[in-house]
Amino acid sequence: MGKNYSSGFKAAGIASGLKKNGGKDLGMIFSEVPASVAGIFTTNKVQASSVILARKRIQSGTCQAIIVNSGNANCCTGSKGMQDTLSMSGFASAELEIPDEHVLVASTGVIGEPIPLDKIKSAVPDLIHELKPDGIADLAESIMTTDTVPKVVTATGKIGGKSYAVTGVAKGSGMIRPNMATMLCFVWTDIKISPAVLQEALLASADKSFNRITIDGDTSTNDMAIIMANGLSDAVVNGASQVESFRAVLDDVLIKLARMIVKDGEGATKMVEITVKGAESDADAIKVAETVAHSNLVKTAFFGEDANWGRIIAAAGRAGVPVLPDSIDIFFDDVQMVKDSMGCGKAVEAETTRILKKPEFGIVIDLNMGEGEASVVTCDFSIDYVKINADYRT
Amino acid sequence: MGKNYSSGFKAAGIASGLKKNGGKDLGMIFSEVPASVAGIFTTNKVQASSVILARKRIQSGTCQAIIVNSGNANCCTGSKGMQDTLSMSGFASAELEIPDEHVLVASTGVIGEPIPLDKIKSAVPDLIHELKPDGIADLAESIMTTDTVPKVVTATGKIGGKSYAVTGVAKGSGMIRPNMATMLCFVWTDIKISPAVLQEALLASADKSFNRITIDGDTSTNDMAIIMANGLSDAVVNGASQVESFRAVLDDVLIKLARMIVKDGEGATKMVEITVKGAESDADAIKVAETVAHSNLVKTAFFGEDANWGRIIAAAGRAGVPVLPDSIDIFFDDVQMVKDSMGCGKAVEAETTRILKKPEFGIVIDLNMGEGEASVVTCDFSIDYVKINADYRT
Repeated sequence: MGKNYSSGFKAAGIASGLKKNGGKDLGMIFSEVPASVAGIFTTNKVQASSVILARKRIQSGTCQAIIVNSGNANCCTGSKGMQDTLSMSGFASAELEIPDEHVLVASTGVIGEPIPLDKIKSAVPDLIHELKPDGIADLAESIMTTDTVPKVVTATGKIGGKSYAVTGVAKGSGMIRPNMATMLCFVWTDIKISPAVLQEALLASADKSFNRITIDGDTSTNDMAIIMANGLSDAVVNGASQVESFRAVLDDVLIKLARMIVKDGEGATKMVEITVKGAESDADAIKVAETVAHSNLVKTAFFGEDANWGRIIAAAGRAGVPVLPDSIDIFFDDVQMVKDSMGCGKAVEAETTRILKKPEFGIVIDLNMGEGEASVVTCDFSIDYVKINADYRT
Repeated sequence: MGKNYSSGFKAAGIASGLKKNGGKDLGMIFSEVPASVAGIFTTNKVQASSVILARKRIQSGTCQAIIVNSGNANCCTGSKGMQDTLSMSGFASAELEIPDEHVLVASTGVIGEPIPLDKIKSAVPDLIHELKPDGIADLAESIMTTDTVPKVVTATGKIGGKSYAVTGVAKGSGMIRPNMATMLCFVWTDIKISPAVLQEALLASADKSFNRITIDGDTSTNDMAIIMANGLSDAVVNGASQVESFRAVLDDVLIKLARMIVKDGEGATKMVEITVKGAESDADAIKVAETVAHSNLVKTAFFGEDANWGRIIAAAGRAGVPVLPDSIDIFFDDVQMVKDSMGCGKAVEAETTRILKKPEFGIVIDLNMGEGEASVVTCDFSIDYVKINADYRT
């Protein structure tokens, strides 16, 4: 058994008054010593000031604290928005007595409204007072928006007999889609690793996790995934096999967080893994899987527990990659529903309808052309998704 | 005043038993003489046999009849599907006593179920018996699926003092998106025009109409737009100015049909025209307009009558084209809501919320970069959309 927390990290989450409902809305992760840092950011051309600042500051490779708020995205707020982000960083660095450039800021919430900076200013001392090694749950709660559950994953690993831990928190639930880790995710570990190797590991793990999930196809202006590694354990990454070992642990944490995000997708009642195989290339397989995973018609059919494979095949056909229109096979879990692009009959349909009633199942689409394969995890598209998003600001 | 119907065309629509509710489900358009024909078809790689056959047959430039059914797409039905499509054509051509290759077949409905050919066979004589110059309404009804209203538009034009008419019927409502006229649309006119000129005119008009609307971003396997011109009026197209004059009339018909389709979009309560200007190119403007028009978050905000411009700007930012993130203006009808990517305040928001309560309104997004401009017409995304599509087959 390894230890199940990272040495030298503390976290906190408190209510500062940004959320109308009085919930926790201000969080912090703090490392007792400067840590290696890596990050990935939204690909949206319109980016919050927090994203712009974090992207710049991680270039130094060092970070010691992240201050994060929910309830306000501080995006599309002009030059005042950036001033406010810098002020948030300043409040934290002054109180923590660390260099300002070692602080990152993250924000999530409504776009286009000025952030009530005075509330944050007066809350920061309390926030820092609350920092503790087991403050993870409070932090996870403080970054939630339409999330219904906090999302925390911890894993441990060993390098040369030396234990280290990796802990991640995430929020998501809407505005999630492949192309970037479009949500907030903060990961910390006490492994010793260089910023460059950490960045590569984060990119690789994101490609297997956050870039393989979708809720509604939208991409946020604010999203980022940041990892800090403070080296306070005795586990040191300094060779290829150690990198591989660490990546496996990181993959595990990020894939679990990504699946938690889909499962808690806005209004989601089902989590569905769309696997495409037999494509001409992995890239083609990704395109088909994403097109099926994004299709509103497919997702509403999942919600309706309707084994409407015609919508799946129609989505596959419009993915913009070669398919053999008469040679597609489709499986629901291990039940073959479609062979050579034709239905396998009413008896099979009864079986697949039972599968569709499950909270989690898989769809396999075999294009029967080549060796390309990829999976994307999606959720169904429910009446509650519309309700949540029609009423979000009111 | 020109005449308001095309000479020599008859239409009909009857119930053949394909629809569970006993509604009209079999229709025909017939020209007393062979007509010039043009068509555009779904870009989906998976295509119904009716699409494959029609695409082939219009190469001859001549068509005299279209037989169309709703209630069954006859797609993903293997080689029997194509045999059944050929049989449908054969029933019609035998009874009409015209060459089989001058008949087109169209189908719409559920994918993947064999079409009950015996029902169609026994209904064809009745269908042909019902053909009449004013059978348009019956035809329009017979092609409806989840449509709630039939869609017919008639326009008239004059060339050199000679009148002609253009009549179009369409069905749509789900599986509509740019990239092709993804629905069924049949247009007929008594103008005299060559198939090649007719094809160009259809493509140009579709680019202004069907390719500028979206309901849910899905693309059907079965969709086609066909135009027949039988030359039985004295209006003859044989010069550039006459082509232009005809195109204007055809534009009018197709744009009206396209807007009717959006207005009757599945569950739609609002029709919204998204106009993007100031883009670097028209192509960029189209991409931004389509991304906004497709965004589930934008569309649910419309349904919720929430002037959530942050979602509009976030969608514009992820369209994959250059934008100046701090220089975007947004108008709701003629009220400016966003200037330089920042909100214009609560007073304006109250005004825009009133606009959002209207059944039709426009959004203008000015990127302030260049001269590129484009519009896409979309609808809101409602609870009923999910209900309709979750329950479609049950």
